[in-house]
Amino acid sequence: MAYKKGKNTVIIEKNVGIASSAAVGSTKEGEGPLGKDFDIIGESRFGMETWEKAESRMQELCRDVVLKKASLSTDCIDYLFAGDLLNQCIASGFAARSGNIPFIGLYGACSTFAEGLGLSAVFCDAFAENCLAEASSHFCSAERQYRFPLEYGGQRPPTAQWTATAAGSALVSKNPKLAKIKAVSFGRVQDLGITDQNSMGAAMAPAACCTVAGFFRDTGFSFSDFDGVFTGDLGFMGAEIFKELMRAEGFEPGKNYNDCGLMLYERERQQVECGASGCGCSAGVACCHLFPKIAKGELKNILLVSTGALLSPTSVLQKESIPGVAHLVWLSSLD
Amino acid sequence: MAYKKGKNTVIIEKNVGIASSAAVGSTKEGEGPLGKDFDIIGESRFGMETWEKAESRMQELCRDVVLKKASLSTDCIDYLFAGDLLNQCIASGFAARSGNIPFIGLYGACSTFAEGLGLSAVFCDAFAENCLAEASSHFCSAERQYRFPLEYGGQRPPTAQWTATAAGSALVSKNPKLAKIKAVSFGRVQDLGITDQNSMGAAMAPAACCTVAGFFRDTGFSFSDFDGVFTGDLGFMGAEIFKELMRAEGFEPGKNYNDCGLMLYERERQQVECGASGCGCSAGVACCHLFPKIAKGELKNILLVSTGALLSPTSVLQKESIPGVAHLVWLSSLD
Repeated sequence: MAYKKGKNTVIIEKNVGIASSAAVGSTKEGEGPLGKDFDIIGESRFGMETWEKAESRMQELCRDVVLKKASLSTDCIDYLFAGDLLNQCIASGFAARSGNIPFIGLYGACSTFAEGLGLSAVFCDAFAENCLAEASSHFCSAERQYRFPLEYGGQRPPTAQWTATAAGSALVSKNPKLAKIKAVSFGRVQDLGITDQNSMGAAMAPAACCTVAGFFRDTGFSFSDFDGVFTGDLGFMGAEIFKELMRAEGFEPGKNYNDCGLMLYERERQQVECGASGCGCSAGVACCHLFPKIAKGELKNILLVSTGALLSPTSVLQKESIPGVAHLVWLSSLD
Repeated sequence: MAYKKGKNTVIIEKNVGIASSAAVGSTKEGEGPLGKDFDIIGESRFGMETWEKAESRMQELCRDVVLKKASLSTDCIDYLFAGDLLNQCIASGFAARSGNIPFIGLYGACSTFAEGLGLSAVFCDAFAENCLAEASSHFCSAERQYRFPLEYGGQRPPTAQWTATAAGSALVSKNPKLAKIKAVSFGRVQDLGITDQNSMGAAMAPAACCTVAGFFRDTGFSFSDFDGVFTGDLGFMGAEIFKELMRAEGFEPGKNYNDCGLMLYERERQQVECGASGCGCSAGVACCHLFPKIAKGELKNILLVSTGALLSPTSVLQKESIPGVAHLVWLSSLD
């Protein structure tokens, strides 16, 4: 049975983990370094009338693939944990209409995927058989909601990140096939006063540091105990700040540290400034790349730390600073 | 340990329940039938510059009271489950900056309070000592986000509901003092094609029916086994539809059935058309009225069924119908 270790960490004692995973992306993701890993690459509307409906469709497509891989029907799924960036999380809410699965809606901004994965692990350790953790984002729906109409062609500052058009879905179960979930740390909200909404990596880095340093203190581990530590979507600037903050806490990030926001695109060639962002970034990277790599034995022991910036366009106009949160999931190979 | 019963219900086997609760409201809530039950009644800005910040402040005030009642500091709280209606849930995200509690952000529209209560119960049954479930809404922040600027003075159709300016916070723990949580049912999204955003009760009633009928089938209970069944914020129209739908399922709602949206205001005198709505409606009614009534022995066995309409202004403009979801919590007196 799950139990708490230290102040932040929940050890998942039972044999709970990822049974299957799937990711859906669009053209830009398909042209990136992980393009071949995605299960489905579609054009940005995915056959729908609007980008918001396209984002819902991506979640549905993802779910279809993940269930097909596991040879399960929606009937076998106890709970669907899902969220996204859209106002009132409509990508997830509308996608949850199909499948008739009990729906637990989440909002953790870009930390949502790890939040859902963590909740799924706790539920499976407690009583559930199968849970789905899903998250999505869409460049076009996010851009017009948070910033400008796409047609306006607004300039992007060098600290900006590119919202991934991606969805990821992971089946967490008592019968894991790809990776075991060994522990979860749900993060505390950190706000160091960053107000620049084009520098979200800087706003989220303290939250990532708080969660990872807390996990290391709870468990006695450090970076060198893992062959991969992957933060959510800090991007280039945020990842540099995260490394500095971790050093100040006494933990030296090695070459095994990377950020999902730096893995999805080739930054210079694809002109994404500081890298990728969005709920779909860590969800997509984990589902199409990290989990399969663990299954193949290419990674044995990793931390996935999705990071979220809990701002809204309204809070920016009201000159509020940007709170960040980061949730951590410790995954390892099955044996 | 918690276990699943039937297709939808989770039985909380350990002694888990509400240790304390608190609710904050504003002038209109103070003038309503439950006015005297609220812990704090404040003016609509709660000393803040904007309504959004006021809503955050209400959550903080609520949390202060609930912890004071339980003589606990924020250090003792394992997790904060919270959500609201604002874009990117900023009321909760910003309120979570204070207290330094691990934060699990939710979005279930007006079903959020029961969603958080259910997750808290599962976590306490599994390994947590103390969890907080919080939800809030604010008439002024909701009205301008979903409908019109307040200054416009838009007319309200007879099926409209009045978003409660209210926040509720419940401390769920292994040492319950007010009520025991006996079971939880997380709901499935239902969408019967209602597109009128001024008739949200009609959109949510099928979800409430699906969850309650599912719970009755799982457990063998019916309305007469409870001395109170309280749906979330269906309002007058929604409650009537819910009763019809339940009858069609073979369950006859008796006089013990009520809706939180019909309890918060006096409909005619306070001119709220079909009644109250908002995340703060069921959260406030439960925290200031239902939980204390259970503690006093005036209610012994109840169902709280918060209902949410998962729409956004964007989905309405895109002519989407309104998906609903309802989460159920079964509460009883301690002995």
